Amino acid sequence: MLSKKVLELSKQHSVIRDIFEFGMERAKEVGAENVFDFSIGNPSVPAPKEVDETAMKYIESGDPVAVHGYTSNAGIFEVRDAVAKSLNKRFDTAYSADNIFMTIGAAAAVGICFKSLVDGPEDEIITFAPYFPEYQVYAEGAGCKLTVIPAETETFQIDFERLKSAINVHTKAVLINSPNNPSGAVYSRETIQRLAELLTEKQKETGHSIYIISDEPYREIVYDGIELPHVPKYYDNTLVCYSFSKSLSIPGERIGYIIAPCEAEDYADLLPVFIASGRLLSYVSVPALYQKVVGDCADLTADLSVYQANKDLFYNALTDMGYECVEPGGAFYLFPKALEPDANAFCERAKKYDLLMVPGDSFGCPGYVRISYCVPTERIEKALPLFQKLIDEYKEN
Amino acid sequence: MLSKKVLELSKQHSVIRDIFEFGMERAKEVGAENVFDFSIGNPSVPAPKEVDETAMKYIESGDPVAVHGYTSNAGIFEVRDAVAKSLNKRFDTAYSADNIFMTIGAAAAVGICFKSLVDGPEDEIITFAPYFPEYQVYAEGAGCKLTVIPAETETFQIDFERLKSAINVHTKAVLINSPNNPSGAVYSRETIQRLAELLTEKQKETGHSIYIISDEPYREIVYDGIELPHVPKYYDNTLVCYSFSKSLSIPGERIGYIIAPCEAEDYADLLPVFIASGRLLSYVSVPALYQKVVGDCADLTADLSVYQANKDLFYNALTDMGYECVEPGGAFYLFPKALEPDANAFCERAKKYDLLMVPGDSFGCPGYVRISYCVPTERIEKALPLFQKLIDEYKEN
Repeated sequence: MLSKKVLELSKQHSVIRDIFEFGMERAKEVGAENVFDFSIGNPSVPAPKEVDETAMKYIESGDPVAVHGYTSNAGIFEVRDAVAKSLNKRFDTAYSADNIFMTIGAAAAVGICFKSLVDGPEDEIITFAPYFPEYQVYAEGAGCKLTVIPAETETFQIDFERLKSAINVHTKAVLINSPNNPSGAVYSRETIQRLAELLTEKQKETGHSIYIISDEPYREIVYDGIELPHVPKYYDNTLVCYSFSKSLSIPGERIGYIIAPCEAEDYADLLPVFIASGRLLSYVSVPALYQKVVGDCADLTADLSVYQANKDLFYNALTDMGYECVEPGGAFYLFPKALEPDANAFCERAKKYDLLMVPGDSFGCPGYVRISYCVPTERIEKALPLFQKLIDEYKEN
Repeated sequence: MLSKKVLELSKQHSVIRDIFEFGMERAKEVGAENVFDFSIGNPSVPAPKEVDETAMKYIESGDPVAVHGYTSNAGIFEVRDAVAKSLNKRFDTAYSADNIFMTIGAAAAVGICFKSLVDGPEDEIITFAPYFPEYQVYAEGAGCKLTVIPAETETFQIDFERLKSAINVHTKAVLINSPNNPSGAVYSRETIQRLAELLTEKQKETGHSIYIISDEPYREIVYDGIELPHVPKYYDNTLVCYSFSKSLSIPGERIGYIIAPCEAEDYADLLPVFIASGRLLSYVSVPALYQKVVGDCADLTADLSVYQANKDLFYNALTDMGYECVEPGGAFYLFPKALEPDANAFCERAKKYDLLMVPGDSFGCPGYVRISYCVPTERIEKALPLFQKLIDEYKEN
């Protein structure tokens, strides 16, 4: 007599988990060094040494009760203040602690934003393929509809015509994810400006506010020469969701935040509503010790240079071989076109070479595959001849 | 255009927060040492030294990427295994890692249990006054009704007649909390046996399973001579929710678990359904470092002896003065009868002496007040003459 809805979700087939398990099995057969698992998006570099030094400092010399004590619902004031100051330096903004709401990672940040905007099943949140598949689950959790705009595969920016016709009176928010998982695309300033103009117009037309939820866990992983626009500077009703998982390489510690800009229409209610949403989701507070740590380390990042090196190597090599791929501006994914229309069949064929990739179908973008390159560079070097063999096989047939 | 339901919740008046803020203001006026805030239930003892030593060990010598990496949805296998072995030693059970699902504290454990059992607004979960007020919010989050059975104020055990007539075809679970916040009552073996018998009968009658959700964050704080029955030994369809917040004094780190016994009817589906519920609530995984720490420290507790000393001192002194109070068997709360029918008026009067307590109305039990004694013993000693003055004032009138 379990919940039918939840039971159904629990039985849904997870393509990524299947690939992971296949990889584990193959590793037993042929050795882990001969399996090239490009399916998993976990940071591959350690946290900066200051992260651990700061944790040890709090453990050794903090108040022994307070160091692991409950923190307030919105987060520790000093941490929120440090995050605000760090953002101000980086984006030339004027945030204070009042604009920052700490969360248990970016997933909780997005979940809280959804819950805070949605009243019932007729409400809609719009996002763009290719998209992070858990968005669908968070929408189900909040009890609303996730409307997916098909991918604009030329550049992986936004198909504005389709977006324009999708917005209606039930549209509560437009969810963007730039740098994007899985495409690696970074929305240009022009894209953000056009989005802001369209939503401003649509807010007038529909007579109610439409938020941008900007999910930015990959914000610090942006490549040479690419500009990352800070969305609240272009559009007032923006909620930014952030995580320290990738920037500080501490994904397991679950620390993130929401930016609630003063310019947002509902600004005065936002933090109280985030607190209420958190309570409805059975959150209490954000983990104490690493919350303090990110406050002290807000200006730092792990050494992310390996991702740029991997991107350059991998992207150049694959496109030289003949793979079609939009060059990523950030994150740590390549999203090339599969070599046959069915990306699932392509991924199956790649498995013969022990190359593990995720079909784009999982991200609402059939015909493409996601390759995670958050791996040691040597793994990519060793895999390249296999990618050559794979494309040769297609050329021969 | 925020969610109306969430906005409404965000504007609800919090009595406990008001008391806390009053205390902060008074502390500025008369000095913190002269304000006796017995309103807050936070552990007042530090974590055992092994907790911090273990954390440092992982930071200093663990794999620098894995130590802060994502952990699997159900929790780290070795941690679940250690928790199971620790329970087996303590309760003579036969749990394995498969019976343990790690959660972000007991709040998340209860939230996940609710979500896993509930399909729609007609579904009911029954609990007993006095009860932890956030249960109401978790039920709202899961989209079901929380039915509250009025308190049995003689002993704060269960009013079985009322429970019997409350159970119906929509009853999904009975939620118990022993040792209890706020009454300090520990359900006796007889109470658990009668509850098991009644629910077994009602399962047959209604033709569907009714779970016991046993929320046990205070499990390790049980006083001399009191037996704490392990509920799954008495009733198969039991889900135990636990937190290390109180036992290891690390409430800010948010680590807990659910026990899913093999004997539960839906055992095979329970862990997958918990994972799915966690995804719907935008959880990802349980904080990594302190998850590992509790695995290594599962057999330990902080030095909880101060709570017994405080209980003995406070309970004896207040009852000697003439306050009516059921002697607590555990937790760190006294729940005496207010000295006038309206507990709110009584608490207001106590404020004149800078004694801060929470009216029982907040816990569904008007006419009583909650006194948290998780404070240094000297605070209680210093407050006792004020409690005497307070009761004298009532005697005079």
